Amino acid sequence: MFSPAQFQLLRLLAGSSGVSRTALARRLGLSKPAITSTARDLIALGVLQEGVALPGESGRPSRPLSIRPSAANVLGIAVAAASACLLRTDLGGEVLERRILRPKGRSSWGPAGLVAAVRAALRRLPGKPPSGIGVALPGLVDQAGRRCIKSTQLGWDEVELADLLVEATATPTRLENDGHALARGLQMFGRQPGDFALISIGVGIGSGHIVGGSLLRGSHGGAGEIAHAPMRMGGAYCLCGKRGCLDTVASLRALAAAAAAAGLPPAPDSLQAAAEQGAPHAVRILCEAGETLGLAVAQMVQTVDPARVIVAAPPTLWDGLYGESFRRTVADHVLSGFAGSRDGAPLEAAVTGDASWDEAAANGAAGVAAWRFLCGDV
Amino acid sequence: MFSPAQFQLLRLLAGSSGVSRTALARRLGLSKPAITSTARDLIALGVLQEGVALPGESGRPSRPLSIRPSAANVLGIAVAAASACLLRTDLGGEVLERRILRPKGRSSWGPAGLVAAVRAALRRLPGKPPSGIGVALPGLVDQAGRRCIKSTQLGWDEVELADLLVEATATPTRLENDGHALARGLQMFGRQPGDFALISIGVGIGSGHIVGGSLLRGSHGGAGEIAHAPMRMGGAYCLCGKRGCLDTVASLRALAAAAAAAGLPPAPDSLQAAAEQGAPHAVRILCEAGETLGLAVAQMVQTVDPARVIVAAPPTLWDGLYGESFRRTVADHVLSGFAGSRDGAPLEAAVTGDASWDEAAANGAAGVAAWRFLCGDV
Repeated sequence: MFSPAQFQLLRLLAGSSGVSRTALARRLGLSKPAITSTARDLIALGVLQEGVALPGESGRPSRPLSIRPSAANVLGIAVAAASACLLRTDLGGEVLERRILRPKGRSSWGPAGLVAAVRAALRRLPGKPPSGIGVALPGLVDQAGRRCIKSTQLGWDEVELADLLVEATATPTRLENDGHALARGLQMFGRQPGDFALISIGVGIGSGHIVGGSLLRGSHGGAGEIAHAPMRMGGAYCLCGKRGCLDTVASLRALAAAAAAAGLPPAPDSLQAAAEQGAPHAVRILCEAGETLGLAVAQMVQTVDPARVIVAAPPTLWDGLYGESFRRTVADHVLSGFAGSRDGAPLEAAVTGDASWDEAAANGAAGVAAWRFLCGDV
Repeated sequence: MFSPAQFQLLRLLAGSSGVSRTALARRLGLSKPAITSTARDLIALGVLQEGVALPGESGRPSRPLSIRPSAANVLGIAVAAASACLLRTDLGGEVLERRILRPKGRSSWGPAGLVAAVRAALRRLPGKPPSGIGVALPGLVDQAGRRCIKSTQLGWDEVELADLLVEATATPTRLENDGHALARGLQMFGRQPGDFALISIGVGIGSGHIVGGSLLRGSHGGAGEIAHAPMRMGGAYCLCGKRGCLDTVASLRALAAAAAAAGLPPAPDSLQAAAEQGAPHAVRILCEAGETLGLAVAQMVQTVDPARVIVAAPPTLWDGLYGESFRRTVADHVLSGFAGSRDGAPLEAAVTGDASWDEAAANGAAGVAAWRFLCGDV
């Protein structure tokens, strides 16, 4: 699609709100005329735009370059067991269309059913065809973003989903683990400068790391799989077959199960309300879950040392006992100056607004597609 | 020192046992004549050598290129509180000289004393002056490898050690955390292809990660600081001021303290011997330590997903109860197919031979210097 020189420039601009030609030249170790010439071509292609002139370093006014959001549109698809959320966005993450897909005549997705549903939805979308598809999957995805290695939640093993989608839609496609997709979405659309670790609290727990501007995928697509970090020797059994995984204590699924076992309402809001009214089991369940997540995140911080930790969680949990126990436990257990410590970068809540987890993941998947379109398959 | 094109080639050859010109051209996306020309210059400089001709991909014999070990010598220095091990090695990690330095007239190193001791030792070394100095420090080092941010063990804060050493010795110098230096040494000298995580069990616990061929340093130089990963809520106090850190349970310091408290001999060998004779406290101390290390490593594997995990530990521990509990706990707590699981890459012991921890760390520091010399300051 783009030339190597164009990709090089686009990689520095993806996710940024604007960079001057002088800064681009310095960061790439190239001459300013070389940058100006590549930028001219990309502006002519409609991919880059120039911002308002600001005083530059040399005193002469400088017009920062940025990605033109309307240059292309992309599809992001977040796949859950019994539904999929499909979003069309522009290159800035603005949502243009939204669809919920469901498997036909069965309770969960097979690969063929998913591909047929995406194909049908794509045909009915008005306007300019999308420049790429990103798919967020709850499971392990290979480094190249072509194959779902394993998804316990979907019951999939070794599914070449990217090729199936390319064949059905003639649109370039890349898969990503859902935690990784959320991190990429924040990097691409969230204007999150620099490196960070993202932890997402949903039915299960996911995470993704941006390190040196790159997504940390791991040798088996499993970097960030802290859902299955062991937190309790001999703890409860997990869907993965092991015992004591973080997911068995701190996920929404675990909270609901613990609440039901204690005769409490399972929704996070009701559980927090019960705790505020003094129900001791509700207090214990929320504090233990928050504390255990805090230990897991402290362990992660000591291993990866991210600049910041961003948490995508339901606001009720983040603002309630769960979030309080979580933040206190992290602060008590990471080295001074590290992210989450009392004197380091604080733990931040991700701005997902009112979006459901599925919609946030689909937005991340659109970020995967936009990144691939602008930066190549990296 | 080298041109950008030369560095590009040397980065692919550092740590490898030989790569053909055809493979180099493919991996760099350059023409074979371009590679041949750069290689010719590096052979003339005495930095590269050609191996024995082997049948190449095209059928024509091909002579693999590799780093010439004798092209330069480097110094590696591992600093402990009351001593420092200094090694001179060639670019293949072969030890040429060995010195133990001690602080003069005081019980621990101040920066000035260390610099003076290194300067004096360097002056007395015979032969060609070293092309670089690498220093392994027990503490946090900045990204650029110039400054020791903090070392509890040395009692140092914000020490610009690299500049002090350059001023005193006129030799290019780079600092690295000791766990990171061990990982770099394995990558550079150990002929460890691909990515791995290294865990080192000494007085304290260190670790280092090679990800995508790069050293994972973290935003505050603290990646791999699993010594301070929290393993026990409200556990024993650690030197860092927190409670329940891995170091308080599974390090040699912790083993010795637990043994002394139980009236047992503190050395790992004696503790293992006591366990073999049925001393219940010795069995408990070794099993708990191994198990706790296993949980910490399983958590690390779930976060980083390394291709392999290499453990540098005293052979008595690795072969005894400690190592057995460790390996079983990892296998029980990581996802199927991941490093350390029953069906994935096994946990490997690092080949440090009879070298003491200090000597292994000094060898790693020499690897840091050799890497900087050949690959630039990355």
